[in-house]
Amino acid sequence: MRERLTSLRPLLRQAGLDALALNPGPTLTYLTGLHFHLMERPIVGLFTAQGQAALVLPHLEQEKLTGTGFLAFPYGEDPATWGKAFRRALDALGLTAARIGVEPTRLRVLELRYLEEAAPQAQFPSGAEVVAQLRLRKDEAEIEAMRRAVVIAEDAFRAALAAFRVGMTERELAAEIVVQLLRHGSEPELPFQPIVAAGPNGANPHATPTDRPLRPGDVVIVDWGANYRGYFSDLTRTLAVGEVDPELEQVAAIVARANAAGREVVRPGLPASEVDAAARQVIAQAGYGAYFIHRTGHGLGLEVHEPPYLYAENTQPLAVGMTFTVEPGIYLPGRGGVRIEDDVVVTPAGGETLSTLPRGLWRVG
Amino acid sequence: MRERLTSLRPLLRQAGLDALALNPGPTLTYLTGLHFHLMERPIVGLFTAQGQAALVLPHLEQEKLTGTGFLAFPYGEDPATWGKAFRRALDALGLTAARIGVEPTRLRVLELRYLEEAAPQAQFPSGAEVVAQLRLRKDEAEIEAMRRAVVIAEDAFRAALAAFRVGMTERELAAEIVVQLLRHGSEPELPFQPIVAAGPNGANPHATPTDRPLRPGDVVIVDWGANYRGYFSDLTRTLAVGEVDPELEQVAAIVARANAAGREVVRPGLPASEVDAAARQVIAQAGYGAYFIHRTGHGLGLEVHEPPYLYAENTQPLAVGMTFTVEPGIYLPGRGGVRIEDDVVVTPAGGETLSTLPRGLWRVG
Repeated sequence: MRERLTSLRPLLRQAGLDALALNPGPTLTYLTGLHFHLMERPIVGLFTAQGQAALVLPHLEQEKLTGTGFLAFPYGEDPATWGKAFRRALDALGLTAARIGVEPTRLRVLELRYLEEAAPQAQFPSGAEVVAQLRLRKDEAEIEAMRRAVVIAEDAFRAALAAFRVGMTERELAAEIVVQLLRHGSEPELPFQPIVAAGPNGANPHATPTDRPLRPGDVVIVDWGANYRGYFSDLTRTLAVGEVDPELEQVAAIVARANAAGREVVRPGLPASEVDAAARQVIAQAGYGAYFIHRTGHGLGLEVHEPPYLYAENTQPLAVGMTFTVEPGIYLPGRGGVRIEDDVVVTPAGGETLSTLPRGLWRVG
Repeated sequence: MRERLTSLRPLLRQAGLDALALNPGPTLTYLTGLHFHLMERPIVGLFTAQGQAALVLPHLEQEKLTGTGFLAFPYGEDPATWGKAFRRALDALGLTAARIGVEPTRLRVLELRYLEEAAPQAQFPSGAEVVAQLRLRKDEAEIEAMRRAVVIAEDAFRAALAAFRVGMTERELAAEIVVQLLRHGSEPELPFQPIVAAGPNGANPHATPTDRPLRPGDVVIVDWGANYRGYFSDLTRTLAVGEVDPELEQVAAIVARANAAGREVVRPGLPASEVDAAARQVIAQAGYGAYFIHRTGHGLGLEVHEPPYLYAENTQPLAVGMTFTVEPGIYLPGRGGVRIEDDVVVTPAGGETLSTLPRGLWRVG
């Protein structure tokens, strides 16, 4: 943790920021080792370019700071008093007219308004780039945690499929996957709730499981992941319930080739866009370019979506220790979809795929 | 849904707001019936006092709007184009210089900045009061859903305790509760991850389950809840593993009396603070006032913490259909804690407690 706090300081200075303000979430945990719930009471960690660290938090959370050396600015139950704790913190750290970076995808208007009122002269630009730099390249321990998260997810998938029966609903299969993730050692805070999308529902890449029963003829997209000590896996495989539409069989083979093509080009220095291009080209050449309607992948780690993002416009070069998904898909409206998703880490030699489950259609029922 | 959108309009006008801007979360689902994930791509629903409804969202989510009549302002993969979708939406709805209410505990800096850039003349005050008014008084169908969420939670608790064994860890018992919640029909998106806090850990009301084994002599706080169709339950019971500290036995009896006292005073028109006072008085008179270190309860429904909050300064009068927890506790630093939490709905006749599990110490091991 000390090392991480130390590496934050030059990143802040390079970005022209005096401090970073974080609410409960992966970056706060990454920097402090502490876990807080996100709730209606604002909790904010302040980390200055000078190396000071402080938390504004409810009295009853203060115990968690024992022995950390972080400054505490606690407040009580009455919301009328919370603003005072923020003012004391920003005064004490000399931030009342500072440039304070925030995480736009995490910090809420709740915390922003308390910060703005406590420091009316301060500015609150995006600190997303600083956070990305801080967390982009995973160290050995982080990659090992992701490896474990992949193993848990793969074992849970096999166990859940053992409970498959024709007629069970999308929701029931999704719940079984959750049960098996927990039984196999996932933390209960999953990266996301499993997606089980059968038949025409599979044509929507972000479908939510429904009460639709899984029937013979269904092609079923299953997208799930595990959490090991805060680090995530994120996998997709596609099932075939009995005999399915021959075109979707072909589509599955094309997507598997696209997935392999994307993973094979990974190497340090390659622009992220090239992974997208490699996968997309396979699908386009097979005549399904119009049906691959999303980017090829996203970074993965303490968040299920984080940099680097793999899409045509992102020329960011890959670097050793970056971890991301490769997940091409083909979606035929009204009929169904196929997606195959693996988790990849950039190594000095190229890319290593952490996930191992077979990538063809999984025959069930 | 139509009715809810209709009742929003006068609430907006009374609050001097031209519109409400919502990101994915319970209020957006309450008003639209639609589910979206909260992710790095901004999704915002705009609801005007004139009755227009529109969503800014990724292209690949647009399918969800089919048949809803909501206006769609979709955008593609390249973040450089997202701002344009926001500008088109705010222009089309005539909101470029409007007062647009937001949910401070939900809306992120991400969505706020897109809105601000799309409408530099607009203001974005808190719409929390409007949202509270909209959702405070639950209708029959909502209360029925909460009743089901309580039944699921209670059945899951009994099933999890059947798997209790001395030496299992806090984490293991918490995971077993999650498994049983899912087996008993909870949606996988739980209101929160169960708390299992044994021995001294129980003195921290917001403890996270650890690898500490549950041993004879432990008093164990278990706090968990279920989700039925988006509506939550939230319960706490306290376990005794074998023989425990006689003072904690007494404390458990005091907390049970405080819990009953809080629930008994509930009636329409009573200030929320009086429920807090009734529970707190029992604990204070028993000499433990300094060890009841949090408010007596919080509203419950589509969110696990929502208005009304039960604390000394909140004079808001209770009204028929309000639903909240009553959860006094006593926390002895270094030794342990006891909390007993039930879910209550305000009825014309007073208050009805939805939860039924016995409130004494649960003997296990």
